[in-house]
Amino acid sequence: MATGFGRMAPLLRPGDTSVPNVEKVNAELFTLTYGAIVRQLLTDFEEVDEVNKQLDLMGYHIGIRLIDDFLSKSNVTRCSEFKETAEVIAKVGFKMFLGVTATVANWDAEGTECSLTLDDNPLVDFVELPETCQGLHYCNVLCGVIRGALEMVNMRTEVRWVRDVLRGDDAYEMRLKLLKQVAEEYPYKDDE
Amino acid sequence: MATGFGRMAPLLRPGDTSVPNVEKVNAELFTLTYGAIVRQLLTDFEEVDEVNKQLDLMGYHIGIRLIDDFLSKSNVTRCSEFKETAEVIAKVGFKMFLGVTATVANWDAEGTECSLTLDDNPLVDFVELPETCQGLHYCNVLCGVIRGALEMVNMRTEVRWVRDVLRGDDAYEMRLKLLKQVAEEYPYKDDE
Repeated sequence: MATGFGRMAPLLRPGDTSVPNVEKVNAELFTLTYGAIVRQLLTDFEEVDEVNKQLDLMGYHIGIRLIDDFLSKSNVTRCSEFKETAEVIAKVGFKMFLGVTATVANWDAEGTECSLTLDDNPLVDFVELPETCQGLHYCNVLCGVIRGALEMVNMRTEVRWVRDVLRGDDAYEMRLKLLKQVAEEYPYKDDE
Repeated sequence: MATGFGRMAPLLRPGDTSVPNVEKVNAELFTLTYGAIVRQLLTDFEEVDEVNKQLDLMGYHIGIRLIDDFLSKSNVTRCSEFKETAEVIAKVGFKMFLGVTATVANWDAEGTECSLTLDDNPLVDFVELPETCQGLHYCNVLCGVIRGALEMVNMRTEVRWVRDVLRGDDAYEMRLKLLKQVAEEYPYKDDE
């Protein structure tokens, strides 16, 4: 794992947005494996809301780890702007990890909140929700991944689905909201 | 999903063993997602043996689904020999799904049992087993996948790890044993 200063840096200007050649596995294997997790959580927890929470938390822990892989293998350089950050997630992050891209839109006036709409969603191939779990955010892991990854670069965010094809909407759209951006600091202060 | 006769066919002669270009996701994302499953199961079940069973079962259900993807996208053609089947799994199956290959060795005299030794194992990157789960077969999902996939092509098998680096061995080696090969039949008989 990368540590220290590099890891504390705010996310990243899209210098070269080409997607690096990283190790890959078959998308269907991933999709089925993810489906197995969701099924397991649905067995474990009675409430669909609790499953949503667990998927988000699982994603958060994955995001905390993935950010290092992203920083070391992507060609993006530092940036402090949240707007740039959202574009990097949409065009480089999604591409590098899931092989798809997202579109950034619907910025609020302050530039702290936007939508990411997925052009395609490999997580949901073969998935159909039974009647009993209509409240499920099947892909909630993705919200958690982004939240976890951004927290490692000093951006505290709230990430949630606002449209979900599995719930009858016409697209997969998540809202990404910057709650707080922590100023970059040296990891250790001399006077402490 | 492919259905009917094609799916009932016994596995497959390596005609062209080139690995087809299939959709991919980032290997680290897969590895971390799989790790999340194992952690969840360790939380759910007290006994490590039960976790091993659940991982195998999970793999079995994945294998049942993956075989169709394999049959439709790989260039292998039918074969009835178990020895060929093992080679196809090692050289085409592992490559297509995990991006690695395996070595087939240690055949018994009857030609019904062999070892598959993994040249690399992307599932275990960043994994270290805590003291409390030394009996865990962390990669048991792979045994289940092979068992499930082979059952769909009329081969009933037993698949288990015999060497496991996470348990202190020097390689990842699974034993693949053919229990019963069901003769191919038309799905429906006229006289029934």
